[in-house]
Amino acid sequence: MQVHAYGAHAADKPLEHLHITRRATGAHDVQIDIAYCGICHSDLHQIRSEWAGTQYPCVPGHEIVGRVAAVGAHVSKFKVGDVVGVGCIVDSCQSCPDCDEGLENYCDNMVGTYNGKTDDAPGWTMGGYSQQIVVHERYVLNIRHPEADLAAVAPLLCAGITTYSPLRHWGAGPGKKVGVVGIGGLGHMGIKIAHAMGAHVVAFTTSDSKRADAKALGADEVVVSRNAEEMAAHAKSFDFILNTVAAPHDLDAFLALLKREGTMTLVGAPATPHPSPNVFNLILKRRSLAGSLIGGIPETQEMLDFCAEHGIVADIELIRADEINTAYERMLKGDVKYRFVIDNASLAA
Amino acid sequence: MQVHAYGAHAADKPLEHLHITRRATGAHDVQIDIAYCGICHSDLHQIRSEWAGTQYPCVPGHEIVGRVAAVGAHVSKFKVGDVVGVGCIVDSCQSCPDCDEGLENYCDNMVGTYNGKTDDAPGWTMGGYSQQIVVHERYVLNIRHPEADLAAVAPLLCAGITTYSPLRHWGAGPGKKVGVVGIGGLGHMGIKIAHAMGAHVVAFTTSDSKRADAKALGADEVVVSRNAEEMAAHAKSFDFILNTVAAPHDLDAFLALLKREGTMTLVGAPATPHPSPNVFNLILKRRSLAGSLIGGIPETQEMLDFCAEHGIVADIELIRADEINTAYERMLKGDVKYRFVIDNASLAA
Ligand SMILES: [Zn+2]
Ligand SMILES: [Zn+2]
Ligand SMILES: [Zn+2]
Ligand SMILES: [Zn+2]
Repeated sequence: MQVHAYGAHAADKPLEHLHITRRATGAHDVQIDIAYCGICHSDLHQIRSEWAGTQYPCVPGHEIVGRVAAVGAHVSKFKVGDVVGVGCIVDSCQSCPDCDEGLENYCDNMVGTYNGKTDDAPGWTMGGYSQQIVVHERYVLNIRHPEADLAAVAPLLCAGITTYSPLRHWGAGPGKKVGVVGIGGLGHMGIKIAHAMGAHVVAFTTSDSKRADAKALGADEVVVSRNAEEMAAHAKSFDFILNTVAAPHDLDAFLALLKREGTMTLVGAPATPHPSPNVFNLILKRRSLAGSLIGGIPETQEMLDFCAEHGIVADIELIRADEINTAYERMLKGDVKYRFVIDNASLAA
Repeated sequence: MQVHAYGAHAADKPLEHLHITRRATGAHDVQIDIAYCGICHSDLHQIRSEWAGTQYPCVPGHEIVGRVAAVGAHVSKFKVGDVVGVGCIVDSCQSCPDCDEGLENYCDNMVGTYNGKTDDAPGWTMGGYSQQIVVHERYVLNIRHPEADLAAVAPLLCAGITTYSPLRHWGAGPGKKVGVVGIGGLGHMGIKIAHAMGAHVVAFTTSDSKRADAKALGADEVVVSRNAEEMAAHAKSFDFILNTVAAPHDLDAFLALLKREGTMTLVGAPATPHPSPNVFNLILKRRSLAGSLIGGIPETQEMLDFCAEHGIVADIELIRADEINTAYERMLKGDVKYRFVIDNASLAA
């Protein structure tokens, strides 16, 4: 089955319209008509081959929402017409301890939604910048948000679960003081979700101009991280800090804000290393520096249901497929509040 | 009260015999005749002013065992003749949440056994390289080991609790695979204690020559960390790694050995930073890099009782006070199995 898509033929080429082939719908597969797909920073890293091993043509996109167009004979969880989502994972070994616990995101053989190794031609997966996708039902999620919110739900599939999972794992909730570093695609979701979990949320930004925005997203307090005095006022006070900033930066400034046994968790990996953190900041208060990668499939469903219940969606700017290249440039400048989402109907235009 | 001691008058001077003054025994104080004092790497760092703010004369020593010589009117826990210990802490605020939980080691106003700020003349504390010490009863520990073991018990007061506390906190025990990096003063205690806790213990060393020694200490397996093949065989398999190496080294090699949600805890801080750890090693398996500082007073008593019950003491080399300078030189070369302990009777000679 040939479908319209948008992708690039090389690292130094812009994205353009192209045709790709989707596999026939297998017994356990769900064939999805994609309505919207969010644009994640990872899409840009992958397509420009800033990470190793990008295969071309490359079709990114792992914040996918749409409607079920067909289901295989053994599919039990979905029927034609259901509103569903697909995130960063489309396959895994299904037999390791990670998979058994529903933490497919940590499976050694996790297959990403794009550029992942697959038996399907051409040998690597292609993502959501396309009209359709065919995915094993295990990796398909139910969407329970109102229909009108669908475009703004798309970013939950990556930005939402990437922030929800560590917030849940490290116990964000009532009585906890939680920091969110960076107010971008990930950070703005982190603020909304931590607030909905009942935590006292402090947003950290480098820019004074984002104060009002951060409050509107649900932050109880906003700290400009370049202001040493503001930072010092929060010393040793945080239970947990979710750090969404992938650019290399001074981790010590935030580690020093954790209370005893506090944890700062990184969800972005820098292209060049952060300055090495000061070990004394870990030792003196038994603090931890941790990492977290997306989330498992059951937890992604839990996150979607939590967000539906609390009326949480992303703040988005809806674009046509032919605006993707421009959107990438704007995203690099931080010029988006806070996520671009592609209207996949425009792919056929 | 004037007592014999051993210390230095400046960072570049050797230690020598000197006299120091101990405060009169207050209502809550315990006056202790020191029998033995272990030599910790911190002693050397402090006396050579490799950390900021060393006051001279400096008398190190925070691995102290001895007998109670006198007690203040309000002392209830100790009587004259009791065998007792004093570790790294001789005072704290006694009113913060850390102190309330018995985690005086994390109190912002913790007073170290030497070079700590005090109202007593001359204004800073002096440690266990001396005939006597006067300490508030809160910071004095009961020793229940047999009398003959006393010299070898001394190192438990720093090296013992510094390894016991993180092993306990991160759940070392039956069914857990625990690594101990470095087989020195701290590491050899870590191996013994983790083994006694029932964990499967893997010792990491840079030196093939330490294999047999590590097994004798209680390691189930020994890995030469320079051997990439040996290291790879343990990838993603550790619940917990206790890293006792303070010299800057490649943390990634060990982080990659942690299983999902595993933690590596540093108990030494390097003078210059470790190479910055690769964030992917934290993200991909939700791993943590943490730190831990000594242990609280109740946990130190728990550790001493645990070690008494399991017959655990340090492996030591007993020396006279006039051998301290030579011992420092040998310690710097790693030429000691595994802790020097001073026979304090030699101070008066
Ligand atoms: Zn993403
Ligand atoms: Zn698996
Ligand atoms: Zn010590
Ligand atoms: Zn305190």
